[in-house]
Amino acid sequence: MTDTLTTETTGDRAAPPATGGHRIDPKMHAARSWFAELGQRAEARLGALEAQAGAAAGPEGLDANPESPPTGGFQVSAWERPRGARSGGGGTLSVLRGRVLEKVGLHVYTVFGEFPTDLRDKMPGAARDPRFWSTGISLTIHPMNPHIPSAHYSSRLIVTSRGWFGGGCDLSPALPRIDDTMTFHAALREVCDQSALAGGPGDYDRFKAWCDDVFFLPHRNTPRGVGGLFFDDLNSRDWSLDFTFVKEVGTTFLKTFETIARRHLDEPFTAEERRRQQVHRGRLAEFTLLNDRGVMAGLKTHGNPDAVLVGMPPEARWP
Amino acid sequence: MTDTLTTETTGDRAAPPATGGHRIDPKMHAARSWFAELGQRAEARLGALEAQAGAAAGPEGLDANPESPPTGGFQVSAWERPRGARSGGGGTLSVLRGRVLEKVGLHVYTVFGEFPTDLRDKMPGAARDPRFWSTGISLTIHPMNPHIPSAHYSSRLIVTSRGWFGGGCDLSPALPRIDDTMTFHAALREVCDQSALAGGPGDYDRFKAWCDDVFFLPHRNTPRGVGGLFFDDLNSRDWSLDFTFVKEVGTTFLKTFETIARRHLDEPFTAEERRRQQVHRGRLAEFTLLNDRGVMAGLKTHGNPDAVLVGMPPEARWP
Repeated sequence: MTDTLTTETTGDRAAPPATGGHRIDPKMHAARSWFAELGQRAEARLGALEAQAGAAAGPEGLDANPESPPTGGFQVSAWERPRGARSGGGGTLSVLRGRVLEKVGLHVYTVFGEFPTDLRDKMPGAARDPRFWSTGISLTIHPMNPHIPSAHYSSRLIVTSRGWFGGGCDLSPALPRIDDTMTFHAALREVCDQSALAGGPGDYDRFKAWCDDVFFLPHRNTPRGVGGLFFDDLNSRDWSLDFTFVKEVGTTFLKTFETIARRHLDEPFTAEERRRQQVHRGRLAEFTLLNDRGVMAGLKTHGNPDAVLVGMPPEARWP
Repeated sequence: MTDTLTTETTGDRAAPPATGGHRIDPKMHAARSWFAELGQRAEARLGALEAQAGAAAGPEGLDANPESPPTGGFQVSAWERPRGARSGGGGTLSVLRGRVLEKVGLHVYTVFGEFPTDLRDKMPGAARDPRFWSTGISLTIHPMNPHIPSAHYSSRLIVTSRGWFGGGCDLSPALPRIDDTMTFHAALREVCDQSALAGGPGDYDRFKAWCDDVFFLPHRNTPRGVGGLFFDDLNSRDWSLDFTFVKEVGTTFLKTFETIARRHLDEPFTAEERRRQQVHRGRLAEFTLLNDRGVMAGLKTHGNPDAVLVGMPPEARWP
């Protein structure tokens, strides 16, 4: 069971984390602060996009999403796990329901506990000591206009007797546009190449292939979108290079999504295109509930289904 | 991969089944014919309800579901697995998109093959010989009016070196009504009691509790509806009594659903009630994709995701 209370956007996300018996070193602090900062940047940028373009979009978009107040803005709530001796933590859940950004779901969290028995062999360093500490962010954007792609970004630091970063981002357009796909992948390639040039862990070909492999619906034999990056077990033994890469992927995702979204803000769409978008969102819902291993693990251990499922589409159809 | 072709409702559902190396005895024939007949009864009764009440509902309902032709009616398609030496089969998929019955999904199938290794220990009789033959029906009804509950019925005969029936039915109202819940459970209790009285396998208390246990969303700690019946491994060594019970549950479900639906046909509903219904359908989608073991198995072995997922709600919301 979770206690939910509403706080302000400028709440205590960067407050000292609960430890769960872990020694919180400066790197863990730094990662936690960064994910909180990135979440606030996402709220600021996407909130500004909605405020500006949503006002122009007028009441038509509003009609389509009566849950949205005319001014848009994120609704922010904090949740906390009842703290046991060995597990606890919590997070901040922010949801924007807009005229242009139909639904944005953002979750920034720090949790700790022990991996269940069946996960201990699979998680690096957990066979020796099942305790983990993790901090991360997950961001999913479902725009109203079907010409703007749905997009997803998430990243996390996991600490056991080892420590590593994981993360990724991808575009899931209902109506794919080659120019958007190229813009997105060019930006991600650039981030990876810059990292590699500096001796860091960026590897576009590998992380792109990994993304194609992970974000795939086996039961429909189809990818969930046009891809992006996915990485896990990222620990090159140079923390600074790893952390820089993780940060660059996050900021690049935000910037590139905004570039792509602004291209299509004024593009008209038909009721039929909107329906195709909702059927496509049915596929995204299938992926999340059938195939997303992070969601599976979250539902089993998190205790907050609304936080784990914050990226679910606002509306989906199975006609 | 599946070949899909459109056939008439009055197609060859009762034609001699493919055998997959099984000797098809008269009982297997009888079960297959019964599920086909029940499917046709469902089409006839629900089609008539839609034709009659849908015409009265007028264009408002139609606007809400532009996929529906004004006259309603089931769209029927047959699918077939490419026949290997040891696996094959197929089914008939019927979908009604109406003004009153927003979406009815019906699947009648006969499939055969070999259980994958990890299922052989779990399926009765499969350790000795992994081959199976199965015939069954699945029916899901999602009405437009949120005062009429969504409802589900399915049943099947599975034959390995043993043979048994499984099945169940339940109501999932967005806005539960105690009178509907009582009507539904009273009818199911009557079927079970009549069966028990004749020495058959009906056991209302056990099958109701089993249903409550199975149709439950652990991640939200909530049932998916107001329950019904669930049974599996039904083989009391008196085929005739088992088969009679299975048939009675099917006809009772159809009749009782219609009784409940007709109570609320003219009941007005608000946009807010409709939105609550769509959020509730998000929960049903979560159950189907996260928790429904039949769906999991079907997606892994069936080869036809549209048939396995025919019960998905027409529209779902995660606001």
